[in-house]
Amino acid sequence: MNYPIKRTAAQTKLSSTANRGMDLEATINETNDYYIANDVAYIYKKPIPIQIVKVDYACRSAARISEAYYKVPSTTDYNGIYHGKYIDFEAKETRTKTAFPMKNIHEHQVKHLENIVRHGGIGFIIVAFTTVGKTFLLDASYVIEYYKRAVDGRKSITYAEFEQYGHEIMEGYVKRLDYLKVVDQLYFSK
Amino acid sequence: MNYPIKRTAAQTKLSSTANRGMDLEATINETNDYYIANDVAYIYKKPIPIQIVKVDYACRSAARISEAYYKVPSTTDYNGIYHGKYIDFEAKETRTKTAFPMKNIHEHQVKHLENIVRHGGIGFIIVAFTTVGKTFLLDASYVIEYYKRAVDGRKSITYAEFEQYGHEIMEGYVKRLDYLKVVDQLYFSK
Repeated sequence: MNYPIKRTAAQTKLSSTANRGMDLEATINETNDYYIANDVAYIYKKPIPIQIVKVDYACRSAARISEAYYKVPSTTDYNGIYHGKYIDFEAKETRTKTAFPMKNIHEHQVKHLENIVRHGGIGFIIVAFTTVGKTFLLDASYVIEYYKRAVDGRKSITYAEFEQYGHEIMEGYVKRLDYLKVVDQLYFSK
Repeated sequence: MNYPIKRTAAQTKLSSTANRGMDLEATINETNDYYIANDVAYIYKKPIPIQIVKVDYACRSAARISEAYYKVPSTTDYNGIYHGKYIDFEAKETRTKTAFPMKNIHEHQVKHLENIVRHGGIGFIIVAFTTVGKTFLLDASYVIEYYKRAVDGRKSITYAEFEQYGHEIMEGYVKRLDYLKVVDQLYFSK
């Protein structure tokens, strides 16, 4: 199964993968904390869906889960509210320099973004090209289009396409990855 | 710690608590599935937040979580989009007949509902009085008010208050607990 397991802080520590400093997820979470603390937006990362199989109730106040497995998420990772609008997005990083492989996004996540947009919400993906050092926001309409193309065509979104149709998100010190600045320009500037 | 642990299907099976038939969470999930299948609304239950401590990577395709603990959720359980609006709520059941104890709702969940409403979203709680056999939707404004009252007054919302200020949600066969019917009347009827 091609399910890309999301690392939590705890897993990162345990995993043998080299720690590449703060990853995209942590950076977005910090940014969301900033937005929340400043009453700008209420956007949260959904917990990782887990199938719990065994729980030890030895101590009533602290049930210990002793067997569980990762489940495939049915929606995107992040959602919330901004300026009265429902916001929904998925965030992914890739080390490749030239393209973002479509297999990193599940079909039902693309379908989910499609549903959200049809019902009046704002949907997009955030993709960090970690080797290049650039992060882009790409509107759901392009994600849907490129997902369809992948059926019998290119199985990825090229870096050039992100440059052309995406919007670069700037990194900062206080607002770590101020993606709502791009959201303002893209969805609230009329 | 007074953290009310939410049961998943797997936990219910393992728990010693008598299975009282389909619980509120399962009923709401089924209703949401109906809404999704009929393109009415996209509202999902957030996964239970888990602190993962230990993962066995014996088999690469199926990482097994061997030690994890429940975390206190920072938001409510359900959110999504309906008629272009952001919807957010918490669902709880109680066996008591006369009142719903405020301790079943965390302070940061009340604060969260307050934030959502201030930013233009729709927020409420759904409370099932399982012994009485009635389920109510109560707007966030009352939840906030009763939460404040609990500081130096009554530590619960009485059943009579649910009857007066809440709205009963009817159970049905296809739409198991058609709470969006109440949402329509309450938030979309002007």
